[in-house]
Parts: sequence; structure tokens; C-alpha cells
Amino acid sequence: MTEVATSRRSRITPEREAELYEAVLELLREVGYDALTMDAVAARTRSSKATLYRQWGGKAELVAKAVRHSKPGGMALEEIDTGSLKGDLHALTLMSDDCTMEQNSALMRGLAMVVHGNPELLRAFHEHLIEPEMAVFRRVVQRAIDRGEVREDNPAIEFVMHMMMGGFAARTLIDEQPPTQAFLLSYIDAVVLPALGAPTT
Amino acid sequence: MTEVATSRRSRITPEREAELYEAVLELLREVGYDALTMDAVAARTRSSKATLYRQWGGKAELVAKAVRHSKPGGMALEEIDTGSLKGDLHALTLMSDDCTMEQNSALMRGLAMVVHGNPELLRAFHEHLIEPEMAVFRRVVQRAIDRGEVREDNPAIEFVMHMMMGGFAARTLIDEQPPTQAFLLSYIDAVVLPALGAPTT
Repeated sequence: MTEVATSRRSRITPEREAELYEAVLELLREVGYDALTMDAVAARTRSSKATLYRQWGGKAELVAKAVRHSKPGGMALEEIDTGSLKGDLHALTLMSDDCTMEQNSALMRGLAMVVHGNPELLRAFHEHLIEPEMAVFRRVVQRAIDRGEVREDNPAIEFVMHMMMGGFAARTLIDEQPPTQAFLLSYIDAVVLPALGAPTT
Repeated sequence: MTEVATSRRSRITPEREAELYEAVLELLREVGYDALTMDAVAARTRSSKATLYRQWGGKAELVAKAVRHSKPGGMALEEIDTGSLKGDLHALTLMSDDCTMEQNSALMRGLAMVVHGNPELLRAFHEHLIEPEMAVFRRVVQRAIDRGEVREDNPAIEFVMHMMMGGFAARTLIDEQPPTQAFLLSYIDAVVLPALGAPTT
């Protein structure tokens, strides 16, 4: 029995996909993850539940992909290559404006809570959000190593995501305000670059 | 009308206070912040709601103080003074065992979510949890400055809490496992000390 038994996924247009993700994020902000149902998504987007399940498998994957879709990505990220680690990290930060960042911060904190005790969502999150983001940072850091800006054996390399996420997530709790571009840029210059031993100017 | 109109707070013993905080944390883990009621706390601890309100003012303050109470603090923290920044940060980390850290991590993530959109809880959190913790780090860093380990004008100084909190909070999301002492010690050595320009050996 080596034959592939899964039926081929039906295609939906990128426009329709974007519309669906928008609706999922809207519902997520309105009712939160736990109260969000596939029925509500189907009703809001006038699609059938069967289609949703066929296309996304389940709520966890649908939500993770919707969140992923709301972040800058794809081609734009690929194009970032300023010639310095500082330049690349700044450019990555500047891709989200302050309003988007505030929305993402609220969303991520909401989901960070739900992820706890929900292995399915944690896995979907890891696959569709954390991993792609880590891949971007790995590529940026690898170029810095190739240019000689960062030593290959610097122990901070494996913590780049922790540092970035920390600055982003801790901002609200510590400073009672959402993260902004200005805050993240100074955090990169004061913390991330020095930890990596990379030039700050 | 300059007369102080508030009645004097009745005293409760430290043992009774500890008992109450334990019960609040228990309830918090069972039902979460939103569903936790002063009625439930009163019932669980066989105290009157009037006493709870007189002593703590409200749910936000009671919960923040209960969480604070569960962390190592007071005299033990004051006594940490190993003679180096690395030694002090490691000693602070080693005060919580891995099991306590895992519980705290779950609790903090749960509350980080609720704090959003709840200014009263955010304020109580800031006053009873973030501020005391920041005071500890400020004292430790100030001693490092006085010893000449850290330059007074190092821009990473204002981000020490962000870095530490980031390592702690990002661990679950990025690595799908709770923070441990071993993880935090290597994070301190790889990130926090180099960012502050302090000796790592």
C-alpha cells in the first residue's frame, strides 16, 4: 500500500485565501482562540466547513496560517540585503509599522497563552510562524558570518530569536506600552548587535 | 476635612497571609484570572470577602501579591553579592528550581494575556512584580558599574529586564520546552553579559 490515498486539495485563489485569513483574524480579535469555531469562520466567509477542513486540516493550522499571512513576508523579506547585519535587522524591523506591531503584539500575547496546554496549536505555530521567522534570521546572521561581522562560534547566535522576541514581548509588561519601531531599533543596537559582537555603527 | 477617613487595616499573621496567597495561586491555576472571584477565594480560605477587600483592595492587587509571594525574594535576594555580575546573575537564576520555573512560566504567560486590556491588573503587576524585580537587577548592575565591570553609559543597561524576560518567555514558544536553570545560565553568558560588555568568565 504505497499509493497516496489523500485526495488532491481543491485550489482557491490567493485573493480568496487572503479574504479568509482576514476574517479569521477578525474573529480571533473579537472572541479569542478558544471561542473561535470553524462554524463561525464558515459563516463569516460564506464557505462550507468541509472546504475549510479540506484546505487547512483544522483550527490550529488555519489560525497559524492566518497570523503568518498578516506578517510581512515572502518576496519582500528575500530582497533585504543591505550589506551589514545592523542594516538588515533594521530593515526587517521597519517592514512593520507601529500600528501593525501593536496589533501583532496583542495577538501574539493572546496566542502565547492559548498555546500553553494545546500541543496541536503549539506545533502549528512552530511550523507556520516560528520556523519561517527563524529561517529569515538565520539567513541574515549567516550572511553576517560570511562577511566576517559575526564569529561563527559566537554563542549568542542560537539566541537571536529569543532576544528579538524578548524585546518585543517584554515591552508591554515592563514599560506599559506597545513595542514601536524606535524602541526595537534601539534594542537591536544596544543588545542584539553587541551580544553577537557585530558592528553597531 | 483633612482627617484620614480610612479605617485602620486589621492585621493578619504572615502564616495566614501565606496560606491565602497559596489558595489564590491554586485557584488561578484551576480557573484562570477572569473566572477567579473574590467569593471563591473567601470560600476556599474560609475568610470573609470584607476582610479580603479591606486587606487587598481588590482582585488585581490580591493576585499580583500572591504571584509575588510565590517568587524567591526578601532577605535571600538581599544577600546575593558574589563579587561579579556573572556570579550575581547566576545566583539569582539558581534561586528558582526548574519545577518552580516551569510553574512561573505558565503562570506568567497566562497573566500576560489577561493583563492586556486590563489596566488595573497591569498597574498592580507593575507595582508588585515588575518594579521589585527591576529594583533587584538595578542593584546588581549598579554594583557591577561600581566595580568597573560595566560602563555606566552602556545602552544595554536599560534593557536588562527585557533580555532576561525574553529568554524566559521565548523559550516555550521557540524551543517547545519550559525554561530551565541550564538554559537561563547559558543565555546569561551568551547574551546578557556580552551585551553589557561584562566579563563572561
